[in-house]
Amino acid sequence: MKDYLKKDEWKIIEEGFNPSFNRISESIFSLGNGRFGQRANFEETYSGDTLQGHYLAGIYYPDKTRVGWWKNGYPEYFAKVLNAPNWTGIRFDIDGEVFDLSKCEVNDFKRILDMKNGVLERSCEAKLKSGRIVKIHSKRFCSIANDNIACIRYSFKAVNFADPIQITPYIDGDVMNEDTNYDEKFWEPISETADEHQAFIITETKKTAFQVCTGMQILIEKNGDQIDADNKSFTKDKYAEIAINTRIKDDQEIVVYKYVANITSENHPKNELQTICKKEVEAAAANGFNQLLADHQNAWAKKWEESDIIIEGDVAAQQGIRFNIFQLNQTYTGEDERLNIGPKGFTGEKYGGSTYWDTEAYCIPFYLSTADQRVARNLLVYRYKHLQKAIENATKLGFKDGAALYPMVTMNGEECHNEWEITFEEIHRNGAIAYAVFDYIRYTNDENYLTEYGLELLIGIARFWSQRVHFSNPKQKYVIHGVTGPNEYENNVNNNWYTNFVAVWCLKYTMYAINYVKSNAPAKFESISEKIKFYEVTETKVWKDIVEKMYFPVDTEKQIFLQQENFLDKEIIQVKDLPNEDRPIHQKWSWDRILRSCFIKQADVLQGIYFFEDAFDVETIQRNFRFYEPLTVHESSLSPCVHAILAAKIGDYDKAYEMYLRTARLDLDDYNNDTEDGCHITSMAGTWMAVVKGFGGMRIENDMLCFTPYLPSKWKGYSFKIRFRNRLLHIQVNQSGTSIRKVAGDELTIKVKDKDIRLVRDQSIQC
Amino acid sequence: MKDYLKKDEWKIIEEGFNPSFNRISESIFSLGNGRFGQRANFEETYSGDTLQGHYLAGIYYPDKTRVGWWKNGYPEYFAKVLNAPNWTGIRFDIDGEVFDLSKCEVNDFKRILDMKNGVLERSCEAKLKSGRIVKIHSKRFCSIANDNIACIRYSFKAVNFADPIQITPYIDGDVMNEDTNYDEKFWEPISETADEHQAFIITETKKTAFQVCTGMQILIEKNGDQIDADNKSFTKDKYAEIAINTRIKDDQEIVVYKYVANITSENHPKNELQTICKKEVEAAAANGFNQLLADHQNAWAKKWEESDIIIEGDVAAQQGIRFNIFQLNQTYTGEDERLNIGPKGFTGEKYGGSTYWDTEAYCIPFYLSTADQRVARNLLVYRYKHLQKAIENATKLGFKDGAALYPMVTMNGEECHNEWEITFEEIHRNGAIAYAVFDYIRYTNDENYLTEYGLELLIGIARFWSQRVHFSNPKQKYVIHGVTGPNEYENNVNNNWYTNFVAVWCLKYTMYAINYVKSNAPAKFESISEKIKFYEVTETKVWKDIVEKMYFPVDTEKQIFLQQENFLDKEIIQVKDLPNEDRPIHQKWSWDRILRSCFIKQADVLQGIYFFEDAFDVETIQRNFRFYEPLTVHESSLSPCVHAILAAKIGDYDKAYEMYLRTARLDLDDYNNDTEDGCHITSMAGTWMAVVKGFGGMRIENDMLCFTPYLPSKWKGYSFKIRFRNRLLHIQVNQSGTSIRKVAGDELTIKVKDKDIRLVRDQSIQC
Repeated sequence: MKDYLKKDEWKIIEEGFNPSFNRISESIFSLGNGRFGQRANFEETYSGDTLQGHYLAGIYYPDKTRVGWWKNGYPEYFAKVLNAPNWTGIRFDIDGEVFDLSKCEVNDFKRILDMKNGVLERSCEAKLKSGRIVKIHSKRFCSIANDNIACIRYSFKAVNFADPIQITPYIDGDVMNEDTNYDEKFWEPISETADEHQAFIITETKKTAFQVCTGMQILIEKNGDQIDADNKSFTKDKYAEIAINTRIKDDQEIVVYKYVANITSENHPKNELQTICKKEVEAAAANGFNQLLADHQNAWAKKWEESDIIIEGDVAAQQGIRFNIFQLNQTYTGEDERLNIGPKGFTGEKYGGSTYWDTEAYCIPFYLSTADQRVARNLLVYRYKHLQKAIENATKLGFKDGAALYPMVTMNGEECHNEWEITFEEIHRNGAIAYAVFDYIRYTNDENYLTEYGLELLIGIARFWSQRVHFSNPKQKYVIHGVTGPNEYENNVNNNWYTNFVAVWCLKYTMYAINYVKSNAPAKFESISEKIKFYEVTETKVWKDIVEKMYFPVDTEKQIFLQQENFLDKEIIQVKDLPNEDRPIHQKWSWDRILRSCFIKQADVLQGIYFFEDAFDVETIQRNFRFYEPLTVHESSLSPCVHAILAAKIGDYDKAYEMYLRTARLDLDDYNNDTEDGCHITSMAGTWMAVVKGFGGMRIENDMLCFTPYLPSKWKGYSFKIRFRNRLLHIQVNQSGTSIRKVAGDELTIKVKDKDIRLVRDQSIQC
Repeated sequence: MKDYLKKDEWKIIEEGFNPSFNRISESIFSLGNGRFGQRANFEETYSGDTLQGHYLAGIYYPDKTRVGWWKNGYPEYFAKVLNAPNWTGIRFDIDGEVFDLSKCEVNDFKRILDMKNGVLERSCEAKLKSGRIVKIHSKRFCSIANDNIACIRYSFKAVNFADPIQITPYIDGDVMNEDTNYDEKFWEPISETADEHQAFIITETKKTAFQVCTGMQILIEKNGDQIDADNKSFTKDKYAEIAINTRIKDDQEIVVYKYVANITSENHPKNELQTICKKEVEAAAANGFNQLLADHQNAWAKKWEESDIIIEGDVAAQQGIRFNIFQLNQTYTGEDERLNIGPKGFTGEKYGGSTYWDTEAYCIPFYLSTADQRVARNLLVYRYKHLQKAIENATKLGFKDGAALYPMVTMNGEECHNEWEITFEEIHRNGAIAYAVFDYIRYTNDENYLTEYGLELLIGIARFWSQRVHFSNPKQKYVIHGVTGPNEYENNVNNNWYTNFVAVWCLKYTMYAINYVKSNAPAKFESISEKIKFYEVTETKVWKDIVEKMYFPVDTEKQIFLQQENFLDKEIIQVKDLPNEDRPIHQKWSWDRILRSCFIKQADVLQGIYFFEDAFDVETIQRNFRFYEPLTVHESSLSPCVHAILAAKIGDYDKAYEMYLRTARLDLDDYNNDTEDGCHITSMAGTWMAVVKGFGGMRIENDMLCFTPYLPSKWKGYSFKIRFRNRLLHIQVNQSGTSIRKVAGDELTIKVKDKDIRLVRDQSIQC
């Protein structure tokens, strides 16, 4: 846990230069616009410790799998988010001395991420080895008004010298991933062109053959006057630069404007990339930095208008929640159904692949409530489009007749991960993908989605479950052997309660969907059945039998669901009784010790109760929460939010607040000592849920939006906006109670604390 | 399964050139002398498919671990058997045309492994692209009379041409392992020297810094006359050659004698390697090929005199058992307690590390009965010397106070393997290592071994078990969670019967050993206790409690031991009901499917019953055998021998013979399609056991050697020799019964078919 960032409601502020925190700050101060993004690497040369990272959505590389001991069914490659051409670089040589903060005495260092406006600023005074003192100030953004472009304004001031200086803005595609499996570079050069003001490189990924044109137009001023006299361009493979030689003296300021565009073959024909890129940088330069910034800020203002959460009386909490909302909005905008949400977004390369069950279990609720419902729908369609690959994946593992197993980690629908206990056994992900369909429809009422896409996907998943169970003779029940539940600290267990529960739920929901589509679109039902050779009677007969006779491990004495059937055979110790030096156990203990222990990485039984809360009375939730919470180490970032929501549900508000704190500032405070690898983007949606579903108590019950708000005692108040079925609602909770305002959309009846409230016009209603 | 080798009682014969079988033959025709060995790679250039392999006992390289997903506790490297300098190479260029069988039309190809004499021969007629026809004949051996040296006699005859020819014997240290993790070469050059008749290279392994001097002296004759005129030597890094230019014409024969020595820094000071090597090759050349061969053959005759098994009336079975005995004798001679038995011996590089539990469970009985007891003792001392490393290994995994966990795979005592389900969970290996102490003492009566080495090792192992169990509240018993038993087709199971049984046995045997040493060598007991801080009273109190309250999974209805507590919850299908195309399942099924199935890779419960047979009545053995045999796929080469022994025990002789056949010709018939990687050396000892313990029914019961011989109906008779407590016995079984002869040593009473037989002098006794 670190505490080196200043608390501020709208800004993340780092004061003082601490190279050992540089990788962490590079993660936290990352920028993105849904289409591309990059870590907060310095523009100028930096020879200190840094993780260089520029990323382009959807541009990946299938890195050959690295495995110690191959097992049948493993994938051949791991599709990796690629470190893409570096477009931020600007080099400064003062009479041959390279300006490099790691070789300077640095004063007044300040880095600010202005979340309101989506802008990264940095300033400092630096004394070079030679004694020269410079002052720099940089400001950059990735435009969300035009997601092709980004701009940098970089000012460089001489304080105490007069010397020749060379300024070299460049684009460098000769980059690597730190996590490459075989020390390979993933990019091939295609072309490089440069003149006095513009430079373009086109690079192509090996194997996947994605092409990217990265271009820049530059403008350099000295004390306000444009200086273009001696610009010299230079190119080599995957690299282009424009160098300006001038002199600088005391108090003179050089300002570099770098207008950049990233254009990829995902969205444009390969032969037009450079033409489009050139148009974009020229248009950007013509508009100028201030205009582009203004457009960008306006776009952010709109986003905040709809997705902001305001917390009064707690700056740290306010900063934390805004940081999470900011990063989520930077990462995914929902405009492209081929894209998804990587666990690190544009902030790092770890976990390489893009899509985990995080999307369905944690992110969809956030986007459902804070963006047009088309955004969440696109995340669903993404999976529908991968259905064939999921069927191929299941076939590879020995399943048949159209059974679908979605991958644990994927980019294009193919499985990337290669640990048997995860890849083959963490099959509950299939349940979360089905659940997301239900969750989306429950929230939006867009039941037509079942007809269009949902049913086919659900049948594939139901077929998988019906083949994955077997009938146990001793138990006279269906069982599911050899799984890893959400708690990855137990592997290869039998009858994980969560997995069994979600499997049965999937079968039931699929049968509901069949009936719905049959009644509402019989022709479509016929055509789907024919397409996927679905034999309703015989197949659903088996499903019904499984639904009826599934085994659920329970302890009748404690009256709790058992995480897996042998759970109580373990030595039960509470987390509070673990010596501090043993934590986090995933760093301190060997794997077998973790597996044998009762310690839970993340909500498992409780994840199921969270998903299917309606199915359980409050006493059941309480008993299970009180048993499992003390055993949970929350070493997954996805855990505390679920515990926060359930704690609030059962009225354990102190625990809810404790859990909320743990998730809200996870990255800002580097709670798990791993922010240097990137931010925990998907778990940020969990933080949002902890406020809205936890403290706000938001639920859909009986097709009605409900709230049971609670005000944490440390807060003066909080408020958030919710989109719901084409309405926009504003919910405000403070010491005098809850007030609800319908900002936009038709009349609506909602429930607040079990009381029906009719929202007719745009006015606050105190409840 | 292949059947391309001719059956012969003493020889392995390949007729006809089949390049697609070349890797398999290279494995089968391997030679070794305990100190070094190599695959049957051709001497001349061969550009076809080949696995080049020369190996030196004890010379290894710590190859950086390759792992997909790192887990705490994994080792940093995997110690690999090294592909060492190639000393067999002889190149022939006929007027610039390289002689290379893969570019020839090959006739009359014949390869013979003469097991009686330990000689590899090869002959053929080959038509080159140019139309030139040559006849070659090569003969080589690795001397077991002097394990520093090896010799080749290579004859090359021109049939239909007259041309200049260059003959180039060479030594090449620029070799690689095929299975290197990061495509690294493991050898560094130290020096190369060569003159007209001798060449030496010294190479050094990276990291481990072993040095090896490989030297040769050559003699070349044409039609019987020595031709040395124009010899030219050439050296470069890690390479030396001597080239002779001459002319050859119709029917002329050139014969190359290559006298080779391999001298390593494991046995000699680095600065003397070349001096010693030079002396060795000079002495060898002075003795001449025929004399060296005679010495070598005499040494083999002695080995066969003591370890041969004769089977009458079944050539295939005779060839099979001799091949196994031959390979075991080539691999390990027991003269060096730092060495052990790699799963592939000198026949391949797969499974890299040297020592598995195979040594204790399968090889020790073979060496106990066929060699001086010092040989088996050295294998035991090997583990004693690794005790500190085993304690370090356990400490790394969170155990304490001197608990020892022996590695799954090792070279120098450190763990090499990195699959959590094996490395951390296949802990029953600790039991086999303790069992070997018991087995050795039971056989030899050398109880003093407990005092000298055994006790300290046993206490380390007992401490491990006592920490690895925990007390289950629901069961009110001690349990062992998270293990992989001998059957590696189940991972991370709870209460594997075999593991629980062997754990309790270890505790009991350690307490026996404590009492023995206390009574017989009280001072030594004190000094051991002090050295390892052993608190007898408190520690054994815990052990006794575990012994008393250990949980053993059983099925009371079927009256069988359960492989693991949830075994019967699986779907029980017999192997005979598996479709043929599904086998072997480790190649056809995904790992999760294998794990969920009831199919057993190798004897597990039955392994325990085999080890501790005395503890069970025949009915119990029968019930368990009849339940588990039909579920066992025997996809480990270590499985059928145990089933063969138990089948014979319960009188199921057809099954015993079926199992014997499966193990006896495993490599010769390439049963598992993997002989190309090398031969299954350690399982060969199992074949020997299947005959001697299975058909011969050899046991030690109540400190007495017993036999219950049975003659398989397909055989006319069989006989074998057994060393036992300084006696040499000859056991002959045929249709007229069993006869026993004491060939050497003092009087002895043994039991044959429950009848006491007193062996007084050297004469056959019919029983």
